[in-house]
Amino acid sequence: MISFTCDYSEGAHPEILKRLSETNMEQQPGYGEDAFSASAKARIRQAVGRPEADVFLLVGGTQTNATVIDAMLRGYEGVVAVDTGHIAVHEAGAIEFGGHKVLTLPGARTKDGRPTGKMSAADIKALLDRNRGDEARDHMVFPGMVYISFPTEYGTIYSKSELSAIYGICQENGLPLFIDGARLGYGLACDEADVTLEELASLCDVFYIGGTKVGALCGEAVVFPRGNAPAHFFTTVKQHGALLAKGRLAGVQFDTLFDDGLYLKISHLATSQARQLKAIFRSHGIPLYIDSPTNQQFPILTPEQLTALQGQVAFEVWERLPDGRVVTRFATSWATPSAHLEKLETILSAL
Amino acid sequence: MISFTCDYSEGAHPEILKRLSETNMEQQPGYGEDAFSASAKARIRQAVGRPEADVFLLVGGTQTNATVIDAMLRGYEGVVAVDTGHIAVHEAGAIEFGGHKVLTLPGARTKDGRPTGKMSAADIKALLDRNRGDEARDHMVFPGMVYISFPTEYGTIYSKSELSAIYGICQENGLPLFIDGARLGYGLACDEADVTLEELASLCDVFYIGGTKVGALCGEAVVFPRGNAPAHFFTTVKQHGALLAKGRLAGVQFDTLFDDGLYLKISHLATSQARQLKAIFRSHGIPLYIDSPTNQQFPILTPEQLTALQGQVAFEVWERLPDGRVVTRFATSWATPSAHLEKLETILSAL
Amino acid sequence: MISFTCDYSEGAHPEILKRLSETNMEQQPGYGEDAFSASAKARIRQAVGRPEADVFLLVGGTQTNATVIDAMLRGYEGVVAVDTGHIAVHEAGAIEFGGHKVLTLPGARTKDGRPTGKMSAADIKALLDRNRGDEARDHMVFPGMVYISFPTEYGTIYSKSELSAIYGICQENGLPLFIDGARLGYGLACDEADVTLEELASLCDVFYIGGTKVGALCGEAVVFPRGNAPAHFFTTVKQHGALLAKGRLAGVQFDTLFDDGLYLKISHLATSQARQLKAIFRSHGIPLYIDSPTNQQFPILTPEQLTALQGQVAFEVWERLPDGRVVTRFATSWATPSAHLEKLETILSAL
Amino acid sequence: MISFTCDYSEGAHPEILKRLSETNMEQQPGYGEDAFSASAKARIRQAVGRPEADVFLLVGGTQTNATVIDAMLRGYEGVVAVDTGHIAVHEAGAIEFGGHKVLTLPGARTKDGRPTGKMSAADIKALLDRNRGDEARDHMVFPGMVYISFPTEYGTIYSKSELSAIYGICQENGLPLFIDGARLGYGLACDEADVTLEELASLCDVFYIGGTKVGALCGEAVVFPRGNAPAHFFTTVKQHGALLAKGRLAGVQFDTLFDDGLYLKISHLATSQARQLKAIFRSHGIPLYIDSPTNQQFPILTPEQLTALQGQVAFEVWERLPDGRVVTRFATSWATPSAHLEKLETILSAL
Repeated sequence: MISFTCDYSEGAHPEILKRLSETNMEQQPGYGEDAFSASAKARIRQAVGRPEADVFLLVGGTQTNATVIDAMLRGYEGVVAVDTGHIAVHEAGAIEFGGHKVLTLPGARTKDGRPTGKMSAADIKALLDRNRGDEARDHMVFPGMVYISFPTEYGTIYSKSELSAIYGICQENGLPLFIDGARLGYGLACDEADVTLEELASLCDVFYIGGTKVGALCGEAVVFPRGNAPAHFFTTVKQHGALLAKGRLAGVQFDTLFDDGLYLKISHLATSQARQLKAIFRSHGIPLYIDSPTNQQFPILTPEQLTALQGQVAFEVWERLPDGRVVTRFATSWATPSAHLEKLETILSAL
Repeated sequence: MISFTCDYSEGAHPEILKRLSETNMEQQPGYGEDAFSASAKARIRQAVGRPEADVFLLVGGTQTNATVIDAMLRGYEGVVAVDTGHIAVHEAGAIEFGGHKVLTLPGARTKDGRPTGKMSAADIKALLDRNRGDEARDHMVFPGMVYISFPTEYGTIYSKSELSAIYGICQENGLPLFIDGARLGYGLACDEADVTLEELASLCDVFYIGGTKVGALCGEAVVFPRGNAPAHFFTTVKQHGALLAKGRLAGVQFDTLFDDGLYLKISHLATSQARQLKAIFRSHGIPLYIDSPTNQQFPILTPEQLTALQGQVAFEVWERLPDGRVVTRFATSWATPSAHLEKLETILSAL
Repeated sequence: MISFTCDYSEGAHPEILKRLSETNMEQQPGYGEDAFSASAKARIRQAVGRPEADVFLLVGGTQTNATVIDAMLRGYEGVVAVDTGHIAVHEAGAIEFGGHKVLTLPGARTKDGRPTGKMSAADIKALLDRNRGDEARDHMVFPGMVYISFPTEYGTIYSKSELSAIYGICQENGLPLFIDGARLGYGLACDEADVTLEELASLCDVFYIGGTKVGALCGEAVVFPRGNAPAHFFTTVKQHGALLAKGRLAGVQFDTLFDDGLYLKISHLATSQARQLKAIFRSHGIPLYIDSPTNQQFPILTPEQLTALQGQVAFEVWERLPDGRVVTRFATSWATPSAHLEKLETILSAL
Repeated sequence: MISFTCDYSEGAHPEILKRLSETNMEQQPGYGEDAFSASAKARIRQAVGRPEADVFLLVGGTQTNATVIDAMLRGYEGVVAVDTGHIAVHEAGAIEFGGHKVLTLPGARTKDGRPTGKMSAADIKALLDRNRGDEARDHMVFPGMVYISFPTEYGTIYSKSELSAIYGICQENGLPLFIDGARLGYGLACDEADVTLEELASLCDVFYIGGTKVGALCGEAVVFPRGNAPAHFFTTVKQHGALLAKGRLAGVQFDTLFDDGLYLKISHLATSQARQLKAIFRSHGIPLYIDSPTNQQFPILTPEQLTALQGQVAFEVWERLPDGRVVTRFATSWATPSAHLEKLETILSAL
């Protein structure tokens, strides 16, 4: 059975496996001191246009969010996020485990009331104004940083001007901005994106380049663009259990992904297939819950369609609507073959 | 330059890379629900002789220790360990980050006062007696579980009777026993070991089978031998940032390591090379700090020897002795070629 | 200037000071082992009709909430509360500091959309159903207990049938119910209350009897009605910094408050004065934001009224409404003299 | 039965109760914004000779230690203390609950091997040198501040030159020095003290003036002598559950204790009685475990003496010696009447 369940259904991009094999028996120091990690970091610094950037290679997304947020907040501070944000919902309380509250904003909605997964600069400003005006402010968790996802959990992206406005309000208020880029490639590589990797790096204080969902077996590259990593971040990474003894595992992977632009190339493949996917659903009259430009698509299926599809194609059930229909998630990735799209087309045509 | 710095200098056992390549494009569910993880767990259950065991595949050692310990302790409890234990010294406070104190025992010493890295049943009993007899007991952290490493941080191992005694005292007192098996293979595969994997599984409440240092790129397999995983341990793993989205990465690796006994086979290689290494040092009159039966050896070098070796062979400086000599660590692994031992022999002969 | 700012503007009920003086030089053991604490606990057990109850005397409300919640939750669990709940807003992240998420429900609203500070059994059920039906459930914080305030932060109370329904749903789902009784006396003593202290004790798993806001200098009495205190709760209290060396300070106070029903007697005074207060505002055409039956009243003032009152009487600014008017809080207490009400009447008449 | 069990057996100094009564019905703001707290803080600033000092009034010792340490450390840092330090042993893991490791030093010993409860500047330097020289340093908790008690848990005190040396080494290394003054008065008021309150305030970065054990019902005054309180310390206090709603309770008490030098006057009483106590034990040939100059004395009793005394006088059993004798603790306080000493003399004479 073919699967559109997620963008981590396959292993790694073949080039990564090839490099892992080629370098396998080279003896290298542990804990990220290896030559591959050094090269990967150099390439990432170049790709983001920031020779002074601090780069750290961690393993997974929840871990990266928890480690970065814990390192950047003081005890009395919390992290601002939309209420659909990954850290607010799907990380099993990893942020709170580290002692910090997630201060949620209701995310922006579409005209018909659907979540976009995004916040606006105005949302942040309103929260800060409300906080400052509150007489009980000192009895409350202080907003200590802002967290957004690019793309968001709903596949949407921020425009350059939206990002600039958000970063502007953050800077005015001394709040670091953290961009969760678990699927960063898909956000940058889609047709609708008007922001480049370099620009994104200049519009935040820290972000990460997701590997796990964009061609790697595992790995997330945290970038502090201005060499602004918190003191002893290495030790914080270790404390969070996020330090690979064989740092080369992440090193080789990111070194490969940032060799000759592979990361964005394979991201383009995924978003191109997603456009196809979108067209297929539309051509069969299946509405999309959100107009996502990236690799995650959210077709709304009738119960009959849901039943008919299950067993022929794998996907994720996202949310059940009051009217009985079901929002589903179909994801493409760097690995999605056109044959899978054709198969889906065939299945839908036969419904 | 050849390196004996550690047992994580190379990548993975070639068979692992081969299987990763072969299975790479198979679509599989994430988060450990893949077929490879299922197979790996089945093989591990069989290898430990416990069809009822709960098995979880995590990424690294510090992470595994922090996750298991946090899951098993209540807030008012701490974990008992020797003062040279990994969790007490080299995990950057990961246990305390989770809110728990490490209650340290001075480990057993050799006749000439050197640490063995081990505790005894009597040490645990003494601590418990002292705690029970203390009038201020309720103002102190309660001993909530016992942590030992097999082999220890000094390469030593527990005999079956020592383990039985420790587990006996733990059971009498309702304290779970946790065995850190980051290098478990090397402990089980050495000539001096008199305990099997099955026996070890019956002599504790939870242990892990180290992958990272025994042939894998990453990965530690946590085993609750009696199906006694704490409730919602999966969620605790997620909360600790220890859950791989591509669970297959750990799955394929452990499935390979536990296919036809590969794990113990390659562990035998390492300990066999370590015996050679030991013989080489002894033949050159270089004393060993500790009589380690496993893959880590601790030659004591004079400052002259240290200087002479540096630049020709890589190793770890472990501790400086008051008399000016230096305890070093040389580690073999599944990957140590005989050529490296010969090279070392040549270098030492030329001193 | 007279003040209606809060119910902790004065010191203690004079009887408490008298008893503190009388007992001052008696030598007593520390940490709650004193005779006064023993007597206080016995009286509380009797007042709640539960000879088997475990009673602990802590110092303050935030501390009590953090200690009880931390003791009752496992690491993967969070506490369910309404979004206006004290633990969700005004405890500076004390719950998250202990590692736990506050899972917020939108509280019930009045017909005109104002918060009541209350949740319903149906709200809890809906949250649990949603959680159980969520395919990503194991990636989310588990609801581990339910927290309500009696009275709520808006002065409202639960009826016996509401409490029964809430406790019913909690019991069906194995969720302990915790009632924050920082102002418990005022909730039980108001005319609208249809639940007694004994009944309340049978409708939850743990609650506390607020002393600080009901006549004591400090002190909150935590009651586990069925002798169901978590193991080693004393040590958890110590760990949270909530253990008084001079336990007698809380002991004497609660012993006095529960001598001959003083606690409810003085609570009646406060709610009786609150009814007067309410009548005064109404008679001057000043609307109340919420129809609170207890000691906190929330008059809505025009900017002119606000300005005119400030400087003559102290009160709290609660919330600014979009139309420019201001919700304020006026609180009575056991200490509110009728002269203050008369003074307020005079001031308002002069506006 | 008379008791020398501890210095918190009685209530408060009568002058405190008097002031509490006199001020009881004055309406004051909560949370430490009251006039009494303001006055207390002003008096403390004057007493420590630091008009710029930040002063906060908390409730108890463990709470104060946990709050101050948590506020001053970053996540990757731990607090250095002697292994007999209160935070290392008798606070139920409160520091670890906040996420921080206590890095213990073996305290200095007397010539006959008994603990003094003290550390030396050289001890700190050795720890820092060892840490800096450790190749695995980044995998270890960083020393982030130094904690000492004055007087120590064994009743001993630091001389001015010892304190200066400790503070010197702390300043050289950028480590804040925190002095736990739970019994500060007794340390400053004893004959052997050569440091004044003003001097002590200039020889550390933060300390607290213990109220609970020196005449108050509860309360510890935290002093940041150079106005160097960590940002938003108020909120951290709240988060730790250490904020009194009725801040006046601590305010009135410290205002009284620092009115006309009452704090040191009553401390003198206690140490004067302790000298008497010491003389009594010596005159009966009962050895003292430690030569403590302050209010805690540690007579070593034979089993026969122990049995004979129990039932006639209360005291604390401190430690059982290998030879069967028992180290006990007898404490005087501001409240110890000479009649109790005479009674003890009579009892001992009758043995």
